[in-house]
Amino acid sequence: MSQWAIGIDFGGTAIKAAVVDEERGILSDRRVFTDTTSGPAGTVRQLSGIIADLYREASEKNDSGNFAGVGVGAPGAVDAQKGLLSYPPNLPGWTVFALRDEVRSCLLEKKALSLPVFLDNDANVAAYGEAMYGAGREFRDFLMVTLGTGVGGGIVLNRKLYRGTQGTAGEVGFMIIDFEGTTIHAGIRGTLESFIGKKGILAIARSMIDASPVPSLAGELCGNDFSRLSPRHLEQAALAGDKVSLALWHRVGSLLGVGLSNVAVLMDIRKFVIGGGISAAGDLIFAPALDQLRRSMLPSMHEGLELVPALLGNKAGMYGAAALCFG
Amino acid sequence: MSQWAIGIDFGGTAIKAAVVDEERGILSDRRVFTDTTSGPAGTVRQLSGIIADLYREASEKNDSGNFAGVGVGAPGAVDAQKGLLSYPPNLPGWTVFALRDEVRSCLLEKKALSLPVFLDNDANVAAYGEAMYGAGREFRDFLMVTLGTGVGGGIVLNRKLYRGTQGTAGEVGFMIIDFEGTTIHAGIRGTLESFIGKKGILAIARSMIDASPVPSLAGELCGNDFSRLSPRHLEQAALAGDKVSLALWHRVGSLLGVGLSNVAVLMDIRKFVIGGGISAAGDLIFAPALDQLRRSMLPSMHEGLELVPALLGNKAGMYGAAALCFG
Repeated sequence: MSQWAIGIDFGGTAIKAAVVDEERGILSDRRVFTDTTSGPAGTVRQLSGIIADLYREASEKNDSGNFAGVGVGAPGAVDAQKGLLSYPPNLPGWTVFALRDEVRSCLLEKKALSLPVFLDNDANVAAYGEAMYGAGREFRDFLMVTLGTGVGGGIVLNRKLYRGTQGTAGEVGFMIIDFEGTTIHAGIRGTLESFIGKKGILAIARSMIDASPVPSLAGELCGNDFSRLSPRHLEQAALAGDKVSLALWHRVGSLLGVGLSNVAVLMDIRKFVIGGGISAAGDLIFAPALDQLRRSMLPSMHEGLELVPALLGNKAGMYGAAALCFG
Repeated sequence: MSQWAIGIDFGGTAIKAAVVDEERGILSDRRVFTDTTSGPAGTVRQLSGIIADLYREASEKNDSGNFAGVGVGAPGAVDAQKGLLSYPPNLPGWTVFALRDEVRSCLLEKKALSLPVFLDNDANVAAYGEAMYGAGREFRDFLMVTLGTGVGGGIVLNRKLYRGTQGTAGEVGFMIIDFEGTTIHAGIRGTLESFIGKKGILAIARSMIDASPVPSLAGELCGNDFSRLSPRHLEQAALAGDKVSLALWHRVGSLLGVGLSNVAVLMDIRKFVIGGGISAAGDLIFAPALDQLRRSMLPSMHEGLELVPALLGNKAGMYGAAALCFG
């Protein structure tokens, strides 16, 4: 008999929640804006309300198995064992908070539901979602990289999440690839995210457009108002053959390849799943990334190197959070 | 009742072999020059001869326990599961060779000894030696870095060797910290080893000495014949207060710190054991390395960061190789 679980992707902007059947995948899901005005206590109430609703709806309908629990992916450093969320960067007023146990208590006291709750961070649950339901299904070991506003990562080893000594493993965006460079993110010079986080990409694009003797189509697409320039414009322009935009994505892919080579030589991980909004540029990024990855490693270490696109899009978090309960 | 094993550190220059008691450590050891003239077959004969001698001597004397096996650390990429050594860089004429099984067969056929043999690479056995008998005893997870001619590494997670998907994990020297830099090692630009391998250190020293308005004591120590300049001269000069040499080691330590920060953010490893001949410079390297490591990471990730010197010196390989048999 199969199992089902509730998987929640709790973000600074939205809470996405789904009923996930272990075999059949997402049965139903919903999305609400995160209430960031009433601090941790408000979030606990909001999460508990959504969980209780989904649990009752699904229990009434569900004919198909055992309830395995509630999994939550949260935006910040998480101690999965203790169920603590620390300093989520996009949630004002939070410090270190026992999110797992508070949600569990609220469900019990306010909703009369005694449910097991699991917590991990958003990058980890996205990686685990891809491992169990997406592009990582065939890989025993891989790194998932999320290219979005930031550059995040989650590591799967031997089909399990690798969390590290304090739960902060996988922070690929903080790897330094140019220690004397001029790009800075979070006060640290030359990190991967300083180059290919969204801000970094737009900065490279601006300097390439400025240096180009011919105007770039990307400029036209944003109405030559470069404060409005977005990765989407650069992607469209590149697909239309715009040389500057093609060069931009080649550069972004190469930089990603340098970062991935550091993961490959250190951890001997050879499979990479690439997701996040920026990864929509697809082969514009993937081809130069794989090329650079190979050129950054000894030929004796090339065997098995592979970059693949993530498959679950913005559902990876819900899938992975639910999968925490099936483990 | 305790166990004992034979631990062998098989290098391109010398073979070091020891009888190791699990509780009491090294009981006796020997060192012979590696015969590199007769290829893999000659090495198999040489290793088997040493093993048979040690085994018979120790068996006669030994009153203290069970024989656990023979462990060998070898200089090159090793597939520990299959017992293969691939392309050892300092052994001419070798390609991919079933070293473990060949040694086992030779012991059986030529010496009438049926002994279990374990194989791993030299960086891994050194890390495992420090884990079991040295500076890593108190750490559950750590990276050992060996600073010598090259920059090598071995990873211990949860008190076990972490080998990666193909057995090549821990190659910290190949991490790229300056992808557009001018230093190159093994064809790859800006790797950690290109900066702080022995050649890299001497190149930095030369350029610092050349740029200095006052002569460096290091120059005096090598008789102003800079082809003879060695890390030892730079260490002596720094300890005597030579400004250029002090700046050199500060630079080397900072570069090491950048590399270690990449390990820390990716794997959430916070303990580092530093060994190898160059690490004799001690705090001249360690202090700036720890300082840079902290400055390269978010304050929220500083907890538990620690750099310690390796304790076993050139015995780490023999200890670790023997410990493979006790596992």
